[in-house]
Amino acid sequence: MNQSTAQKTPESGAEQKSHVLTLPLENSHVDRSPHTYERWLVAKLVRMAGGPSVRFRLWNGDIIEPEGQQAEFTLHLTDPKALYALVTNPNLAFGDLYSAGRLEVEGDLPDLMEALYRAVHQARQKWPKWLEALWRNHNPRSTGISEAKENIHHHYDLGNEFYRLWLDNAEMQYTCAYYETPDLTLEQAQLAKLEHVCRKLRLKPGMTVVEAGCGWGGLARYMARNYGVKVHSYNISREQLAYAREEAHKQGLDNLVEYVEDDYRNISGQYDAFVSIGMLEHVGKENYQAMSELIKRCLKPDGIALLHSIGRNRPMLMNAWIEKRIFPGAYPPSIGEFMQICEHSDFSVLDVENLRLHYAQTLSHWMERFTENEDKVSTMYDEHFIRAWRMYLAGSMAAFRAGSLQLFQVVFTHGDNNTLPRSRQDLYNFPAAPEEA
Amino acid sequence: MNQSTAQKTPESGAEQKSHVLTLPLENSHVDRSPHTYERWLVAKLVRMAGGPSVRFRLWNGDIIEPEGQQAEFTLHLTDPKALYALVTNPNLAFGDLYSAGRLEVEGDLPDLMEALYRAVHQARQKWPKWLEALWRNHNPRSTGISEAKENIHHHYDLGNEFYRLWLDNAEMQYTCAYYETPDLTLEQAQLAKLEHVCRKLRLKPGMTVVEAGCGWGGLARYMARNYGVKVHSYNISREQLAYAREEAHKQGLDNLVEYVEDDYRNISGQYDAFVSIGMLEHVGKENYQAMSELIKRCLKPDGIALLHSIGRNRPMLMNAWIEKRIFPGAYPPSIGEFMQICEHSDFSVLDVENLRLHYAQTLSHWMERFTENEDKVSTMYDEHFIRAWRMYLAGSMAAFRAGSLQLFQVVFTHGDNNTLPRSRQDLYNFPAAPEEA
Repeated sequence: MNQSTAQKTPESGAEQKSHVLTLPLENSHVDRSPHTYERWLVAKLVRMAGGPSVRFRLWNGDIIEPEGQQAEFTLHLTDPKALYALVTNPNLAFGDLYSAGRLEVEGDLPDLMEALYRAVHQARQKWPKWLEALWRNHNPRSTGISEAKENIHHHYDLGNEFYRLWLDNAEMQYTCAYYETPDLTLEQAQLAKLEHVCRKLRLKPGMTVVEAGCGWGGLARYMARNYGVKVHSYNISREQLAYAREEAHKQGLDNLVEYVEDDYRNISGQYDAFVSIGMLEHVGKENYQAMSELIKRCLKPDGIALLHSIGRNRPMLMNAWIEKRIFPGAYPPSIGEFMQICEHSDFSVLDVENLRLHYAQTLSHWMERFTENEDKVSTMYDEHFIRAWRMYLAGSMAAFRAGSLQLFQVVFTHGDNNTLPRSRQDLYNFPAAPEEA
Repeated sequence: MNQSTAQKTPESGAEQKSHVLTLPLENSHVDRSPHTYERWLVAKLVRMAGGPSVRFRLWNGDIIEPEGQQAEFTLHLTDPKALYALVTNPNLAFGDLYSAGRLEVEGDLPDLMEALYRAVHQARQKWPKWLEALWRNHNPRSTGISEAKENIHHHYDLGNEFYRLWLDNAEMQYTCAYYETPDLTLEQAQLAKLEHVCRKLRLKPGMTVVEAGCGWGGLARYMARNYGVKVHSYNISREQLAYAREEAHKQGLDNLVEYVEDDYRNISGQYDAFVSIGMLEHVGKENYQAMSELIKRCLKPDGIALLHSIGRNRPMLMNAWIEKRIFPGAYPPSIGEFMQICEHSDFSVLDVENLRLHYAQTLSHWMERFTENEDKVSTMYDEHFIRAWRMYLAGSMAAFRAGSLQLFQVVFTHGDNNTLPRSRQDLYNFPAAPEEA
């Protein structure tokens, strides 16, 4: 029996959404003894995954310990079909089974996920080709204009009330924060990120900025408030835009900030700065050339562009579960892949910074707040959704900790622009974070 | 008649070198009238080069003005064969003819070269394929172990006395300096570069460093003196090593610095830092994978690597004249190409900085000193060599000004290293340059 995820009516009265995290959820709890080959499959699975420190507890209570070690974590499989799903497509099934409650984890979830990432990363270098193909290949969804709308709607229109529960309450930033010092609050670190980005763009009053993908509009408002620049921000998420416009209006920024409901591909005009924070992951490699031409077109001769994106150390597909259930169409590029954007239009890269561990810390803060607010989330979404979200946050945190994901900020200009910042000293003249959030 | 470049015996008594800058130097001065098709060829050449602001004066005094503009520069061709060489292979012939005195420039040489670079850069996007092939294709020399020795000997063993005439007298740095502020002397800016590199490597006393390609050994001595680290520096230029060892001995650094006469491919051991300043240009793309594996092998788990190299905004062969006459085998990579080194071994890029205009300023300082010391150089080398060197310095300065060349510093670590610097604040805590050199 397939059961689609039931969504409770949220307190905020946001619309019903039926597309969220649908997956087969079978109530197939059994207590028959596992077959010999099922036990063999478990041992094989653990070995192929690089021998992480996990034991399995099967549906009848049988325990399978890993070879030659005292396991740190226990994975409990509630039914034989869960095992088969895990063996044939672990990347997708792990998240699905966890969300459905058919795979239970004993031990810290982010720590377990980090251990899995590290073990698999080592192991996969020795995988035979067929296993690589079986476990890794999947076709990410298209990121064409109409599909992009759906992809973005799927995730970003879950309801502003939902995101408000666990994002910072300074500027609702749903991207990596910048922890200049380890003790910053989430709010301080998000404001520090906005400040860091503005400094990298060398903004001055009166300049014009175009932003591709603006989330809840926090960067645009920050730029207008603190740097006196005019910002055009593009987004295709209606829920986010509604919030962004309301906030800008409240803050009296209507004359400086314009939020445009349109695809980034339709940006027109010329600007002193082009900025995009956390959108490139959704652009798709097949659109990098068009994106490059877009930036070429709308950046003034002396303008500076900054792209901030999740990335990889080498080309690799997004984790299948994340791509299918959380971020449809997502693809984090390696710097080599990223360079297609720069090389195609003869852009000159001025600065690349990797904030990987800052994203791990950001996710840790988000997860803390999400966990504190699970009660409130449960008035909006069902248990399945909550478990999926927990897995998404924990898995992402683990991926950044294990070095499976990176966070790149890349600054570039036209190749023949000679009005360049002399050094990066000006990024560090005083702390980017406010003293108190 | 082929005439190889005659080398005078240098005052310093360095060995005779017969391999420097050999090229056909024809004494074919004529004063016949140019044919109609020769005048057509000149006009065509200027048009295909994007219409730079140059007029030609031909061997008989005839002037050919560019279309629709008052020319800033005059190029004087002394003979018809010079024109044919320029039309069929301008990249190679321009430098050769200038060196041989068969092409004379009226106007500032770096400014002319910059105008040429900018015009050609625009124009070549519209070149037909056959012209691109005719004017751009050449086969760079091999960079295998035995050829690398020759390539390096060709340039870097020209005599320490020669380089001393125009490099900084602080640490004989033959790479891009770092002008934190525009008014730094060459000496201050070179020391600031060394300091900047040390900070990027986060050196601490007692650490070990391996350096691939050490020039006259200045970075190794700076690190030992100022950071108390142990350095192994590899080089295959004998002249440079002799100087480097003598200097280290004079400064009492024998216990901290070891200069090894060997190819970088033979580096052994494990180190806290891997550094290479201005060698990657000589490595050749075909060796990036091996270089990647070398760094993987000899960098400790928490170690940091820094490569500093001339580069490009997009893949392109080195200018033919520079590759053939000045730096045999040289190839400056784009960041995309550079990433082969990082992606092959799952390295994580932490920081990329582009110091393009700093190299233009460095070259301007070098050229100033070279020009001041041409009298002294003429006691070591003939007029042909001096003109070639002037063209090399002016052309390089122009290439950095025009954005045809870049200077990248790339910092990376093993992909699973989590002991990362939190921010780059520590690079900017106080000025890198000493108050006076």
